[in-house]
Amino acid sequence: MNIDVILTPLEAAAERINGRRVVVIDVFRATSCICAAMSAGARRLIPFTSIDECWQEHSKWQGTDERVVMCGERKMLPIEGFALGNSPLSYTKESVGDATVIMSTTNGTRSIQIAEREGATQVLVAALLNARAVADKIAEQDGDITLFCSGRADRFSIEDTLCAGYIATILSKEYGAKLSEVAWWASDVYNRYSDDLTAAMEHNGHYHRLNELGMGDDVNYALQRDIMDIVPRVMAGEVLL
Amino acid sequence: MNIDVILTPLEAAAERINGRRVVVIDVFRATSCICAAMSAGARRLIPFTSIDECWQEHSKWQGTDERVVMCGERKMLPIEGFALGNSPLSYTKESVGDATVIMSTTNGTRSIQIAEREGATQVLVAALLNARAVADKIAEQDGDITLFCSGRADRFSIEDTLCAGYIATILSKEYGAKLSEVAWWASDVYNRYSDDLTAAMEHNGHYHRLNELGMGDDVNYALQRDIMDIVPRVMAGEVLL
Repeated sequence: MNIDVILTPLEAAAERINGRRVVVIDVFRATSCICAAMSAGARRLIPFTSIDECWQEHSKWQGTDERVVMCGERKMLPIEGFALGNSPLSYTKESVGDATVIMSTTNGTRSIQIAEREGATQVLVAALLNARAVADKIAEQDGDITLFCSGRADRFSIEDTLCAGYIATILSKEYGAKLSEVAWWASDVYNRYSDDLTAAMEHNGHYHRLNELGMGDDVNYALQRDIMDIVPRVMAGEVLL
Repeated sequence: MNIDVILTPLEAAAERINGRRVVVIDVFRATSCICAAMSAGARRLIPFTSIDECWQEHSKWQGTDERVVMCGERKMLPIEGFALGNSPLSYTKESVGDATVIMSTTNGTRSIQIAEREGATQVLVAALLNARAVADKIAEQDGDITLFCSGRADRFSIEDTLCAGYIATILSKEYGAKLSEVAWWASDVYNRYSDDLTAAMEHNGHYHRLNELGMGDDVNYALQRDIMDIVPRVMAGEVLL
């Protein structure tokens, strides 16, 4: 099993995705929210890039018995008219249990769509919250893996790369997977900060901006490892368990 | 002064290059060869992507008194009819002193052309061989810097990122420059391996392939730091001192 890492969507060429299992990562905060929603009992989660698409999807469910919850963010803030923002702490049994969740986010949703479009054989959703569950699931069958960091605005992000490094470390150390150069690099930095991920956040501008916006609880929540034993997967545009 | 790092040419969008000083890095082996050639007394070095362009440039110099030396590589091996390959050890006073050197390489040449095309205010050439000289030169004037890792075939390379991390470390620690997230990441890994860069090469496929091809002396040479006090710069397609 070979493990590769894509650091930003710019690298998401078909040759690095097609025929491989792809794990989409967006720790701050889309994939952390997806994990929180699915863990809280959402029936399915449908991600979109644009707000218009979310409303179009919403209208399709009108007249059914389905409970539909709209959520997402723009520039780190909630969207007008949507029930939930992008705080993983807001995804509870009360807010999304048994519901269909329609989500729009800036980076993570786009990565999921790219992975499906470029021919991934399977698309899984990972955050630090469920990293070990994803790694253990991956190891159940053979086949090459691409860990797809969503980054921010086509740029590298520390928290996504740490998450990729954590998954790469488990697959390498416990399951004998072979790491590409960049996967090794991500794993190496993860191991340096594994005792204190917050120490790696010092140089992370997005982390500081989220804290300034009063979202310190969100980021501290999203930096927790392995508190969820779930592996969300994407099937034809829908996230399911 | 803000320091950013581009890990592969895929990231070389105008917004990350235009109006900035850009340092092109391709440790294995184009920029190590450029440094070796300029240090050995080459008058100028003209880089091209294609072999045809090299021969076209060569024909322009026919009938002049200029000593012209052709060099470069394809898939790590010398080019037929060219005097020199891509071994930095072959660039000596005897082989290139006072000469115009025409060079074709796979990755480094392309990065130089991209940096010029996308509007860099200045393009400098760095390898580990001259990293400190480049950092000190950069610090002489204010203005943002992009360290441009050439990588290999649009993929991340450990040796280029270590070189960028070394330059970022000097600029940050000694001159108070501010590092972007990815620049910090590169700097952090560099500092972990600064006592033994070879230890970081274990997971570097290209390093092993060069060694297998009998080019171990080349790579060990290129992994030396600060043995040259020169800062090659690119002016309208020509590398000069």
